[in-house]
Amino acid sequence: MSEKKEYKVIGTRPIRHDGVDKVTGRALYGADFQTTGLLHGKVLRSRHAHARIKSIDTSRAEAHPDVKAVVTAADLPTAADKIADLGESAVNLKYLCDNILASDKALYTGHAVAALAASDPHTAEEALELIDVEYEVLPPVLEVREAMEDDAPLLHENLKTDAMGEKSEESSNVASHFQHKKGDIDTGFAEADVVIEHDFVTGTVHQGYIEPHNATALYNPDGQLTIWCSTQGAFAVRQQVSEILQIPVSKVKVVPMEIGGGFGGKISVYLEPVAALLSKKSGRPVKVLMNRAEVFEATGPTPASYIRVKMGVTNDGRITAAEGYLAFEAGAYPGSPVGAGAMCIFSPYNIPNGLIDGYDVVVNKPKSNAYRAPGATNAEFAAETVVDEICEKLGMDPLEFRILNGAEEGVSRIDGPVFPRIGCIEATEAAKEHPHYEAPLEGENRGRGVASGFWFNVGLKSSVAINVNPDGTISLVEGSTDIGGTRASIAMQAAEVLGIPAESVYPTVVDTNSVGYTDVTGGSRTAFATGYAAYEAAQDVKQQMTERAAKLWEVDAAEVQFADGDFVCVNGKDERMSFKELAARLDEVGGPVTGRASVDPTGVGGAFATHIVDVEVDPDTGKVEILRYTATQDAGKAVHPSYVEGQMQGGVTQGIGWALNEEYIYDKDGRMSNASFLDYRMPTCLDLPMIDTVIVEVPNPGHPYGVRGVGEVPIVPPPAAIANAIYRAIGVRMKELPMSPGRILKTMGKL
Amino acid sequence: MSEKKEYKVIGTRPIRHDGVDKVTGRALYGADFQTTGLLHGKVLRSRHAHARIKSIDTSRAEAHPDVKAVVTAADLPTAADKIADLGESAVNLKYLCDNILASDKALYTGHAVAALAASDPHTAEEALELIDVEYEVLPPVLEVREAMEDDAPLLHENLKTDAMGEKSEESSNVASHFQHKKGDIDTGFAEADVVIEHDFVTGTVHQGYIEPHNATALYNPDGQLTIWCSTQGAFAVRQQVSEILQIPVSKVKVVPMEIGGGFGGKISVYLEPVAALLSKKSGRPVKVLMNRAEVFEATGPTPASYIRVKMGVTNDGRITAAEGYLAFEAGAYPGSPVGAGAMCIFSPYNIPNGLIDGYDVVVNKPKSNAYRAPGATNAEFAAETVVDEICEKLGMDPLEFRILNGAEEGVSRIDGPVFPRIGCIEATEAAKEHPHYEAPLEGENRGRGVASGFWFNVGLKSSVAINVNPDGTISLVEGSTDIGGTRASIAMQAAEVLGIPAESVYPTVVDTNSVGYTDVTGGSRTAFATGYAAYEAAQDVKQQMTERAAKLWEVDAAEVQFADGDFVCVNGKDERMSFKELAARLDEVGGPVTGRASVDPTGVGGAFATHIVDVEVDPDTGKVEILRYTATQDAGKAVHPSYVEGQMQGGVTQGIGWALNEEYIYDKDGRMSNASFLDYRMPTCLDLPMIDTVIVEVPNPGHPYGVRGVGEVPIVPPPAAIANAIYRAIGVRMKELPMSPGRILKTMGKL
Repeated sequence: MSEKKEYKVIGTRPIRHDGVDKVTGRALYGADFQTTGLLHGKVLRSRHAHARIKSIDTSRAEAHPDVKAVVTAADLPTAADKIADLGESAVNLKYLCDNILASDKALYTGHAVAALAASDPHTAEEALELIDVEYEVLPPVLEVREAMEDDAPLLHENLKTDAMGEKSEESSNVASHFQHKKGDIDTGFAEADVVIEHDFVTGTVHQGYIEPHNATALYNPDGQLTIWCSTQGAFAVRQQVSEILQIPVSKVKVVPMEIGGGFGGKISVYLEPVAALLSKKSGRPVKVLMNRAEVFEATGPTPASYIRVKMGVTNDGRITAAEGYLAFEAGAYPGSPVGAGAMCIFSPYNIPNGLIDGYDVVVNKPKSNAYRAPGATNAEFAAETVVDEICEKLGMDPLEFRILNGAEEGVSRIDGPVFPRIGCIEATEAAKEHPHYEAPLEGENRGRGVASGFWFNVGLKSSVAINVNPDGTISLVEGSTDIGGTRASIAMQAAEVLGIPAESVYPTVVDTNSVGYTDVTGGSRTAFATGYAAYEAAQDVKQQMTERAAKLWEVDAAEVQFADGDFVCVNGKDERMSFKELAARLDEVGGPVTGRASVDPTGVGGAFATHIVDVEVDPDTGKVEILRYTATQDAGKAVHPSYVEGQMQGGVTQGIGWALNEEYIYDKDGRMSNASFLDYRMPTCLDLPMIDTVIVEVPNPGHPYGVRGVGEVPIVPPPAAIANAIYRAIGVRMKELPMSPGRILKTMGKL
Repeated sequence: MSEKKEYKVIGTRPIRHDGVDKVTGRALYGADFQTTGLLHGKVLRSRHAHARIKSIDTSRAEAHPDVKAVVTAADLPTAADKIADLGESAVNLKYLCDNILASDKALYTGHAVAALAASDPHTAEEALELIDVEYEVLPPVLEVREAMEDDAPLLHENLKTDAMGEKSEESSNVASHFQHKKGDIDTGFAEADVVIEHDFVTGTVHQGYIEPHNATALYNPDGQLTIWCSTQGAFAVRQQVSEILQIPVSKVKVVPMEIGGGFGGKISVYLEPVAALLSKKSGRPVKVLMNRAEVFEATGPTPASYIRVKMGVTNDGRITAAEGYLAFEAGAYPGSPVGAGAMCIFSPYNIPNGLIDGYDVVVNKPKSNAYRAPGATNAEFAAETVVDEICEKLGMDPLEFRILNGAEEGVSRIDGPVFPRIGCIEATEAAKEHPHYEAPLEGENRGRGVASGFWFNVGLKSSVAINVNPDGTISLVEGSTDIGGTRASIAMQAAEVLGIPAESVYPTVVDTNSVGYTDVTGGSRTAFATGYAAYEAAQDVKQQMTERAAKLWEVDAAEVQFADGDFVCVNGKDERMSFKELAARLDEVGGPVTGRASVDPTGVGGAFATHIVDVEVDPDTGKVEILRYTATQDAGKAVHPSYVEGQMQGGVTQGIGWALNEEYIYDKDGRMSNASFLDYRMPTCLDLPMIDTVIVEVPNPGHPYGVRGVGEVPIVPPPAAIANAIYRAIGVRMKELPMSPGRILKTMGKL
């Protein structure tokens, strides 16, 4: 591990800046937004999973005295008759737009078909019945392998890849295929003493954020559109709305309200363009809120998948080859996270020979979306279960095996990239050294499992502006929606530079007109990249304040240094001022100081985690109880350890839900049977023990404080770790998610 | 005049960015602000102009079930029992606080004594009657000369300056006295062939903004206070609230809503600390709105004044000496604009010997406040009337006299400062050359008058941030409340730098947490200083984009120049890109670009104006009709000529109102008799002809585009110009404002 640096603010645990607002209910979410003349919109959704839309008659709705606007896909500038003019990107744009308001076909139950705005939400809801849609109902296809069959119902005529991944004359549901190769897979398996191969299935899972989607839009007569919404990325909303409505980005101002969870599912737009169109037509601001059923049926989810994994090892425990076949459900339109799954599936290991095939397959379910390390959980569930079986066969300790084969600096992933300094082995060693790993686990039907996980993390673009206040505080202007405490973790990075407490930073998340371009809060990038921007903006401030100190002392700027939280004169004059003291005197030497930075950092550090879980399986009911859970993870440098721990605990919790209970259940017509939190079973605190966390710190050389993204990787290991624990408990290998009571009993042969 | 520069954007007349919002009623003013749980506050005001507050019993109001909070001065951290702890500034702080909520004495009718918040505004208003205040009523003093008399009722025991301006053991109503001297006044008058001396009186006048004061406050349990209000300076509100509530500035966030006029009267806080206290007590957001009577009785006004002017000239028309005695009503607390009046009174002239005495005198009227060139209109009404009489005596053309004696670069004002390059003579020459000046004016009781005016203007601090959008537009973040079109004039200065149209700039006025410190929109500083900040922030952007262009072309940054709106490669490579083209490609070379600047410019250019007015006086009624009006003014460089013309026309209009009709009328007990727009007579468009404007451009060397402040000086000449015109029409010299029908008839000897 690198030498530890000493920080004053980084690594401490100040109270988050938005804490009181959040716990007192004062924080303003999209649904809280009010304005004069507000109309309320509702969306009419298809009750068919697959149907051709023959006609939509809105005349009865339009005649309703309290209905102020009705819109359909025909109101989009990208409507079928105009799409041809839009050039090359037209196909993807059509997918994007059709998911907002279906044009020719409804492709999943819950697919938006029309919308209206009325004077109150109840009238709006009732008036939806006045929109007459004539459908030609088509058979749906709801499962990835079925969708890849030759005689499957087809969603899109223009997709022409066959089930072998080759370009074809025939239409299919395969949207795309890719392959990654490293070394020689045949040689690799030939060198193996033990080869294990299994196939795995995972269910469709929703991100399950507490706050439903919402959007309020005001389309001004001068063509300026303002949108207030819940989003992980205000600039992403701006970009998508701009494309969908075919207006320049600068005509769209997006005001990000507080967000009640996103987990990747609040990056795509759903309601925003609809509210905008309704506002344009009605001339009034329009608010549209989803209910929970709409959230389940029309947003999210992370896709179900079919995965086959084959791995070969020598008798002394060296992996010689790994092969993966990943077929992911894209949902109604192309774009599953199969690519990311393929990047992660074998990446905790140093594997000389590898082959990965990925398939993106459309089915009659909502368009899949990002969910915390998207694709990786599906993929590593498969790989880490196979690894566990290998260790069993070899009689090797599974953590020793992982350390022996662990990825490290200089190793290339099967999909190509070479690892920089990473903490894969360190995170696994931390698990091995944790008391949990050697603790006795007595009692019947109990078992302990482990698994590792990888997530690559992203960098992308962020901007920050800093303004110095005369009382020695700073205001920090940022464009990153704060989901998990990033106001604090970003503020702390600026505070560290300037030698001030975290409490002296006043962070504000502002609209797209008031800060430089900033990418989404996602990809475990925010504390890393927006934090980096805060660091750079603070450097800009520090440099200017150094010049001001020099002016005050009538010396050269080069003779002033910033050390130990103070500006000091190094030319022999005995002068010293804290940031606060200097801030109070800026007016004497030129007035206020403001700093800014926009960054696009490339030194992203990958994230690795290893988890240990103890379970007890009730052999009569199949219910799995989590007895103890320990998660280790390389955070690079934990800016605010509490929020790193929170991310780890949150990721584990969602991973446990995904592992044991969560899934979309469809009837044969493709209607979701459990579109409520009563029937879609997420873990509550009663279902879980305290989740123990160990933060490992292998500094990322690509960040001034060594920060790595931390938000996503903790969701990756739980399903495999729990499956491995279940095997130790009751001797059956679970290869399907969720490992719900029914599925456990079935695998045990009891159903 | 300096050589004219060619600009592409500066000097054009684009549609203002907030135009549609304003004309469609969509712009959000403070009264439009809504939030969940909002309470409504009302203020109990004294009906006595002078009274000791013996006790305030709020118990009956507090017992009302719908009243959620009641506050008095005792709730201020600066209450009488705590004020001694606050050190040196305590006296001024006590004045500031006592004007928010009276503690020991009520000093004017309308003085706030207590406030409460209730669930709706009607309940709040009614519940005011449940607050029991016991007063000891004292005799009021309502006029500056009476207030200076020995036996006048005393407002404050601690004021100890006598009527001669000397420090005294006795208390008085004189808050302060100052004296400016230049040359030797006795010698000056000895050299004079003609000496004219008169005394003048001006009335109390309100700024008359359309929008009443308003404030909504939310005092969070974590000590963070947010205020939404109508203000000329969000940072000024932050500063005052911070002082009054004794909390750090960073604990106060001020969100400036749109503003319906200010003219100087929306810089001081009134309701903001009251709303904050009510919110703190009730735990809920509280909105407080004034009605028009409250606006008249408790805000504004610009003070009444007594002014004596004596000027000496030689027979060939050279001014040898000028003496001024200015006594201004401060209102209830010290701080009239007498200082500014003294700076302006003789400043259009090159005067070798001068003496000016200024007195700031408290009276039982609302605390006086800034109003467009505060103090200058009072002062120059006197001086410019005397100058007119001098010209008459000498038989000189009054504009020729002004040109002969006109102030110019290198001349020092009587109060000290030496003029930089100014356009005093040029503006007067423009009037002299205007067809209006020589146009025949036939008919009885008609006359033409002229007068000049000076306003010094200020610089102060401003900050701007600029973010580049990929569609080639920029967002411009500023802290200057936009009262008269400064979104446009500031945006245009950034656009000029970057070679883009004004329409490609999206200006946003943001809260105090989201932009660097910016002083008030006032002092004719905004287009000058915030425009300067926009210029500098745009330079910061341009420099970064030059580096990006160099990266794209793989050349040195020094080999890229910005010329004619394009980035061009000057090393022989034939490369050229517009700002828009480069903006679209920033992601290839490092991501977004953001710029920032904070400025405190010292090169403020003074403003001069000369006006010509034709009037007709009805000898039976005394009514004065404005027949024709022409205003000339040196704008330095008119960024957006329409808004310069608008400022000139607006200033003239207010000057005409002040000249002819506007005044506070008090009964003997000090109660205002005309606290409504029905009885307080402001000019409407039916009262006025089209006001002709001539923009003179003598570039200010202290600004990159030569900009001078333009907003204030046009209010200065009208009263004198009209008085001089009335004299030509009916042969009487008016020495009292307003020159209302009654006063005209009285001066004519008809009443």
